[in-house]
Amino acid sequence: MKRKLRMGMVGGSLDAFIGAVHRRAANLDGEIELVCGAFSSSPEKSKATGEALYLNPHRVYGSYEEMIKKEKNLPGDQRMDFVSIVTPNHVHFEPAKMALENGFHVIIDKPLSFNVKEAKALEKLVNKTGLVFALTHTYTGYPIVKEARNMVSTGEIGKVRKVYVEYPQGWLSTFLESSGNKQASWRTDPSKSGAGGAIGDIGTHAANLAEYITGSNIKEICAMLNVVVKGRKLDDDSSMLLKFDNGATGILMATQVAAGEENNLNIRVYGEKGGLVWRQEEPNTLEVKWLDKPKETIRAGWGYLSDTAKKNTRTPSGHPEGYLEAFANIYLNFAKAVHEYKPGRKINSEKFDFPDVADGVRGMAFVEAVVKSAKSNQKWTKIN
Amino acid sequence: MKRKLRMGMVGGSLDAFIGAVHRRAANLDGEIELVCGAFSSSPEKSKATGEALYLNPHRVYGSYEEMIKKEKNLPGDQRMDFVSIVTPNHVHFEPAKMALENGFHVIIDKPLSFNVKEAKALEKLVNKTGLVFALTHTYTGYPIVKEARNMVSTGEIGKVRKVYVEYPQGWLSTFLESSGNKQASWRTDPSKSGAGGAIGDIGTHAANLAEYITGSNIKEICAMLNVVVKGRKLDDDSSMLLKFDNGATGILMATQVAAGEENNLNIRVYGEKGGLVWRQEEPNTLEVKWLDKPKETIRAGWGYLSDTAKKNTRTPSGHPEGYLEAFANIYLNFAKAVHEYKPGRKINSEKFDFPDVADGVRGMAFVEAVVKSAKSNQKWTKIN
Amino acid sequence: MKRKLRMGMVGGSLDAFIGAVHRRAANLDGEIELVCGAFSSSPEKSKATGEALYLNPHRVYGSYEEMIKKEKNLPGDQRMDFVSIVTPNHVHFEPAKMALENGFHVIIDKPLSFNVKEAKALEKLVNKTGLVFALTHTYTGYPIVKEARNMVSTGEIGKVRKVYVEYPQGWLSTFLESSGNKQASWRTDPSKSGAGGAIGDIGTHAANLAEYITGSNIKEICAMLNVVVKGRKLDDDSSMLLKFDNGATGILMATQVAAGEENNLNIRVYGEKGGLVWRQEEPNTLEVKWLDKPKETIRAGWGYLSDTAKKNTRTPSGHPEGYLEAFANIYLNFAKAVHEYKPGRKINSEKFDFPDVADGVRGMAFVEAVVKSAKSNQKWTKIN
Amino acid sequence: MKRKLRMGMVGGSLDAFIGAVHRRAANLDGEIELVCGAFSSSPEKSKATGEALYLNPHRVYGSYEEMIKKEKNLPGDQRMDFVSIVTPNHVHFEPAKMALENGFHVIIDKPLSFNVKEAKALEKLVNKTGLVFALTHTYTGYPIVKEARNMVSTGEIGKVRKVYVEYPQGWLSTFLESSGNKQASWRTDPSKSGAGGAIGDIGTHAANLAEYITGSNIKEICAMLNVVVKGRKLDDDSSMLLKFDNGATGILMATQVAAGEENNLNIRVYGEKGGLVWRQEEPNTLEVKWLDKPKETIRAGWGYLSDTAKKNTRTPSGHPEGYLEAFANIYLNFAKAVHEYKPGRKINSEKFDFPDVADGVRGMAFVEAVVKSAKSNQKWTKIN
Repeated sequence: MKRKLRMGMVGGSLDAFIGAVHRRAANLDGEIELVCGAFSSSPEKSKATGEALYLNPHRVYGSYEEMIKKEKNLPGDQRMDFVSIVTPNHVHFEPAKMALENGFHVIIDKPLSFNVKEAKALEKLVNKTGLVFALTHTYTGYPIVKEARNMVSTGEIGKVRKVYVEYPQGWLSTFLESSGNKQASWRTDPSKSGAGGAIGDIGTHAANLAEYITGSNIKEICAMLNVVVKGRKLDDDSSMLLKFDNGATGILMATQVAAGEENNLNIRVYGEKGGLVWRQEEPNTLEVKWLDKPKETIRAGWGYLSDTAKKNTRTPSGHPEGYLEAFANIYLNFAKAVHEYKPGRKINSEKFDFPDVADGVRGMAFVEAVVKSAKSNQKWTKIN
Repeated sequence: MKRKLRMGMVGGSLDAFIGAVHRRAANLDGEIELVCGAFSSSPEKSKATGEALYLNPHRVYGSYEEMIKKEKNLPGDQRMDFVSIVTPNHVHFEPAKMALENGFHVIIDKPLSFNVKEAKALEKLVNKTGLVFALTHTYTGYPIVKEARNMVSTGEIGKVRKVYVEYPQGWLSTFLESSGNKQASWRTDPSKSGAGGAIGDIGTHAANLAEYITGSNIKEICAMLNVVVKGRKLDDDSSMLLKFDNGATGILMATQVAAGEENNLNIRVYGEKGGLVWRQEEPNTLEVKWLDKPKETIRAGWGYLSDTAKKNTRTPSGHPEGYLEAFANIYLNFAKAVHEYKPGRKINSEKFDFPDVADGVRGMAFVEAVVKSAKSNQKWTKIN
Repeated sequence: MKRKLRMGMVGGSLDAFIGAVHRRAANLDGEIELVCGAFSSSPEKSKATGEALYLNPHRVYGSYEEMIKKEKNLPGDQRMDFVSIVTPNHVHFEPAKMALENGFHVIIDKPLSFNVKEAKALEKLVNKTGLVFALTHTYTGYPIVKEARNMVSTGEIGKVRKVYVEYPQGWLSTFLESSGNKQASWRTDPSKSGAGGAIGDIGTHAANLAEYITGSNIKEICAMLNVVVKGRKLDDDSSMLLKFDNGATGILMATQVAAGEENNLNIRVYGEKGGLVWRQEEPNTLEVKWLDKPKETIRAGWGYLSDTAKKNTRTPSGHPEGYLEAFANIYLNFAKAVHEYKPGRKINSEKFDFPDVADGVRGMAFVEAVVKSAKSNQKWTKIN
Repeated sequence: MKRKLRMGMVGGSLDAFIGAVHRRAANLDGEIELVCGAFSSSPEKSKATGEALYLNPHRVYGSYEEMIKKEKNLPGDQRMDFVSIVTPNHVHFEPAKMALENGFHVIIDKPLSFNVKEAKALEKLVNKTGLVFALTHTYTGYPIVKEARNMVSTGEIGKVRKVYVEYPQGWLSTFLESSGNKQASWRTDPSKSGAGGAIGDIGTHAANLAEYITGSNIKEICAMLNVVVKGRKLDDDSSMLLKFDNGATGILMATQVAAGEENNLNIRVYGEKGGLVWRQEEPNTLEVKWLDKPKETIRAGWGYLSDTAKKNTRTPSGHPEGYLEAFANIYLNFAKAVHEYKPGRKINSEKFDFPDVADGVRGMAFVEAVVKSAKSNQKWTKIN
């Protein structure tokens, strides 16, 4: 019989940002319940978090190691089904590895890991265990992004020629990491974030979005990375020229020093017959520009949408869904895959339409290539 | 010790619209769990719904009467804390009355009841019992609507002079009720909806929004009601001139035959020094127009917002929240009030900032006055 | 042989607003040249204006009477062809009458006259003389407004059901007339403006726009007029419910106390199949909302537009035209009619597509009916 | 005594696009009159154009050489004051040179010439003669662009860090030059257009706009040029990374194959404290984003604007000006400079605020550098 799935969380104490997002995304549809967690390396923080979340104190653990071990020994009608990992990048690999090795499915925040090597090791393990593994590239969870992907793949705008993807934010315009801001601190610290700053934090989202919508991979880049704010150790600004597998070209920019910008991820894709424009800050709208007829505005919740968009929508048109709902779509699609999991059978993440470990490996390769390109005098650098 | 609140639901079977909205709103923040329900007058439907929601089959009831009686007899550590009523208008009064009489708090969809008489009876009962009672006028749950109310009350735009509130939808542009559409059928049926069609369904939202933001009541109206689609039995279109308590004047329109419109509730409030514009379809934005300086765009999630807006926000700026989050704010604020409830102490719904039974009574009086005005040759009709 | 038309101007000295607009509109297309003027009741001002405009000093006159008399006596290859009247409302009738009586075509700013009586007298005279007579209801000069009219008349959006037209401005939010502002002074003075304040100044534009696009006349109104700013003598704010000839209903508002608004004339027209939205401040765009397909955005300059829109456009799409170009379209269409003028033959202003004396009479009847309705306790007042 | 300036035109026959734009721009303010022209290399076309423009047939010439020679010999009270050159790029240099050598001021369409060599020769001649020379980089004629420049130069947004300038058009998405489209034909023909296609036609506008607003020059680029449409001989698409003199970096894209785009030039400039966003298709609006306060929307026609914006505005706020008015500002400012011209005194084009020969030289150097960079494997190429 079908039942709610049981989630254990690694990271996400009360003072973190993304942990609460994951929990709300998991809560929304009533398909998942949080049953345990190792919310912090500080036992006090972890305990306080568990209490605030009304968890059984016996299932609030002092470390992910403890959680995985103890949960594994619980009876099957209590034991967690999967682990949600919401720690900073340098604490992605170990808990993910241990969860997989102990038979737990995993959903994990992006970027996948600290570097390409870790990413590939995880991919190997996922392929070996056959467990369900999702990466929360939130923005492909929006129904209208799925509609855009569908329009490209069905040829409505013709062969894709140009792709412009942008991710401007402004919150790192000042030297915020010096003021004790937790979010800023680890993201600008190479020992926690990895080789990329802005490029890892948000550039990977942009690249993933472009590849998801176009169905084509970025194969070569020509990148400029900048440290705009004095004293910062990692890039806070990036721009690059792009070449795609399918012959299209384009531009990607991701910056955290565009003063006044919020979270303005946006993409424009032009084909032979028309162009698509999507902006994350108004996520329920897709503009479709045509060569010789009026621009159309596709909107979430209408009957004319594709099935894939409809399946990822909860409300009628004009009742806006947002970021948490996009996030919840990833959890919901992940949960559907977990329900269908059977040992020895490989899950088709394409069918369930969530970002998976292969997307994570691509993201890490992208970061590596951008850092390499930025240091090179050669124009073009391949993504391996 | 604080714990999750336990909710029982009346109405909201799988084929209903608003029931699922209420459930997601209740789920989102992890503060409420659905423990029981009487989801439909059809026992099969109710059972199927309970199953889909992973409920204990013993707590899926055949009627609200049964639910209230049996839950009352459960031990205190299992018994539901409150009832959520999501049935059509003509099945609001009885379950609400019975819940209150049996000591359960109530959260109920709008409009409050079938007519003013029922509304006033409920108000009396709420005042007598002191139980917590919330009405889901969703749109005042948006943080930016709260910001607008705050700007008016603190005098930022000066004394209010003009109020324009609109609620255009297009979904009833055709004779949809003849095609078996469940939503259309009861809303256009006077035996289920009450004296008002569009004016009750969405006009009450518009009036409530205008009064919430301005902090002033509509005291007189001059209304035109139309049945635009042939064969329909209730108004599907309304327009009216308004006079407010505080001397402001304005216009309200609510229509369901504006072909192509989605759910375009919007309001403009002009004071001596500036004007506010808010549109529900882009709910995270408030435009503020000034007499002699540039227009400003207030956005959800920024540090410059008032405390009341901040407390009703979950994500940073640029991570859009939507309709479900606004709905969830009503549930969350209601839940906070329930936690503070003590027998014999009256809850201040103003403090907890959710629409209450008095708003419901005002809504029903509004509908009654509009229907009266529409039939009259006199220009102005008072709202009692 | 065709030649540039020669224009004489009444009013429009250097410190006036609308005179310079008329001159630029007349200049733009190189079809008209200003040859003479009686720019002010002050001979010094008139002279200075003529000098600044590089006019022959002999043709800068002290009064319109002098101008009309002297120009009439000039040889045919020098004499002005038409008079442009850009004075305040109370100085419309006499110069227009005299010009017509002396064989000059007339183009005149709106509203047509001081009251209905004058308007009807002018209409009689135009019909008698057969001379070309245009009224500068600027906003119907926009190509996209013409496209909207065309879409309605060809039935694209189905039978019209609802019309919402608004004209909010904010510039009279304070008691500006006390500070020597010339524009504010005469417009708020009943001895210069006539019976209507905002309703005459901008309400007539709104009504004209609604009737032009829908091809239907407003037949009954239910109006509220307000004097919002203390000390003011004429209405600065108006709202009204509308009934149209063709069975549609609607709302008109025109206000000059919407603090922060610029010149935000806009209209929404909903038919059985779809709705149109046009906003003057972004005049090259027409939104078309549909019942069951994506919203379209019609834009000036595209090949898919109707002939009438194309003929009134000068630049390719994306090269925005504005207010002066709309104004120039009225001059250009008027000029075409003048070229076709032959004594004894009546000009079809419909064919040349400019607002004419009949529109002017309707405008004055509208103002009269609104003022009457505002004073009445009866709900509905007919426009005669 | 001041008088209207007399203009002679080279190019701009009836079937051309930009010639009519120049004439309307020159007409608008009544400061310039067209007195003669050599409109086409075809004498018939030239004659027909002159007739349609009501010119004296004796002053409609068969070639620019004839025009310059004959006009030079006319008496001073008839002779043209300046030449307006609106031919394709390969016919810019010779008429400009001859006009200057014969003492006529020049206003000329962009780009300045066929190549850098010609550009530098013209610059030398302008400096030698001291005659007034303007280049119609239309978009810097918009008052709101001037406001943006002013905001940067006065430090309101702090030191500039990032510049994103884009110029997407869609009209060359198909092989239009094969269908006899005159505009497409010469622009895609290297023998008429020069070394750059899109990069010369619109990329120069984008570069000029970025340099005008930031007050800083682009010093290095890393460019990708594409020929997207098969069979085309020149680039129809370009993207590049930018480094500015003042340390800012950025991106420029200019493409004519963004299907569905009209003329969507836009720029974003981010400084330490805030960011500016301007879009040509809504030219009267400047968005100003701030680090820690609400976004502001600057609008043309308000009292709070700088003098430079005000001087280039004709109408009050909300009465939109457009492309022709921006163009007219260049003519008007050029005309003011011509009025102040005295032989031997150098005109300060900065003071009169119009693009001059030095901007033209920079534009040609930009095209040359982009073409060079696109062919290079080195990342960065200097603009000389």
